[in-house]
Amino acid sequence: MIDDGAPRRGALDQLMKMLASLPGLGQRSARRITLFMLRKRHAVMVPLAKMMLQAAEDIKECDICGNLDVHNPCGVCQSAKRDNSSICVVAQVSDLWAIERTKSFRGTYHVLGGLLSALDGVGPQDLSIEGLLHRAADPNVKEIILALSATVEGQSTSHYLADHLEREDLLITRLAHGVPVGGELDYLDDGTITTALKSRRI
Amino acid sequence: MIDDGAPRRGALDQLMKMLASLPGLGQRSARRITLFMLRKRHAVMVPLAKMMLQAAEDIKECDICGNLDVHNPCGVCQSAKRDNSSICVVAQVSDLWAIERTKSFRGTYHVLGGLLSALDGVGPQDLSIEGLLHRAADPNVKEIILALSATVEGQSTSHYLADHLEREDLLITRLAHGVPVGGELDYLDDGTITTALKSRRI
Repeated sequence: MIDDGAPRRGALDQLMKMLASLPGLGQRSARRITLFMLRKRHAVMVPLAKMMLQAAEDIKECDICGNLDVHNPCGVCQSAKRDNSSICVVAQVSDLWAIERTKSFRGTYHVLGGLLSALDGVGPQDLSIEGLLHRAADPNVKEIILALSATVEGQSTSHYLADHLEREDLLITRLAHGVPVGGELDYLDDGTITTALKSRRI
Repeated sequence: MIDDGAPRRGALDQLMKMLASLPGLGQRSARRITLFMLRKRHAVMVPLAKMMLQAAEDIKECDICGNLDVHNPCGVCQSAKRDNSSICVVAQVSDLWAIERTKSFRGTYHVLGGLLSALDGVGPQDLSIEGLLHRAADPNVKEIILALSATVEGQSTSHYLADHLEREDLLITRLAHGVPVGGELDYLDDGTITTALKSRRI
């Protein structure tokens, strides 16, 4: 404000600055959201704020797999309907949620909390690898699915885990590479097409 | 969750659903923001929620101009440094903020709260027009700037206001149309080029 230099709109500016720092938001979207919320204080702003405080209090990281849930152990780890013999290793909670949304996996998970990266200085001790090795030592566990990204970091993390998950009767699998469902060949990179060709099926 | 059908992740899902309903956000960005906030509970999530509650409580609509501020009347209306003889009429608070950011206007504002629109059923009684006419009746007010969008609704609202703001010594002005600063002619619509040509200056 140019009128007198005093931080009159301080509270508003602070709120917008904080919103703008959220991933995917900028100053413009923060302003838009702020005005939207101020117009719907009782329907949106106050309930959302209370929900955030509640979530910050209630949502815990699962001691077993690292998932986020109001329960600890989380719903997946607690459920009697999940197959405990299969552990799907993912980098982030968002990956776990992505797999859960497909409703195509009935086993349990293990969230590493990131990927090994020499560049970013992320070593094995920074990830939840010890917990995974401990869980994998249980003879009831029959399969470890390494569901990590097809990037350099993802692949080197997969290699590291495969090396350390040595147990004779433990099956270690990875996600299949290939043409995404609905994907057009023309837009795919050469590496994917090569892999899809090599792994062709009858 | 497919494990048992119970709303185990209820609190999280509700939070993400509410975030996804904010303007400009979708399910994907809501998930991303939720995970970001949960990782930074004490640095971001809790302070932001408290700031939202505070803002919902403190931010008021200015009785004079309709601006949003912690003060009522707002900082602009209260300031002795602003020129009360000039009132800039805008549709939304966001327009007021946009003009304030330019630091090129020293007068006061009047927020209509929207634009006349036969299509959306917005009539004069739905906007803050009576308050504007009342303010404009003050003989100290010398100029009304109609800073409304160059859309059909904006122009018809400007016409309506100009018709009703009849006072002999009151100057009614509108924003200039023309080529945006930094705009390339090639990308401009015909109407803007025509107007810019007609309003050409020496």
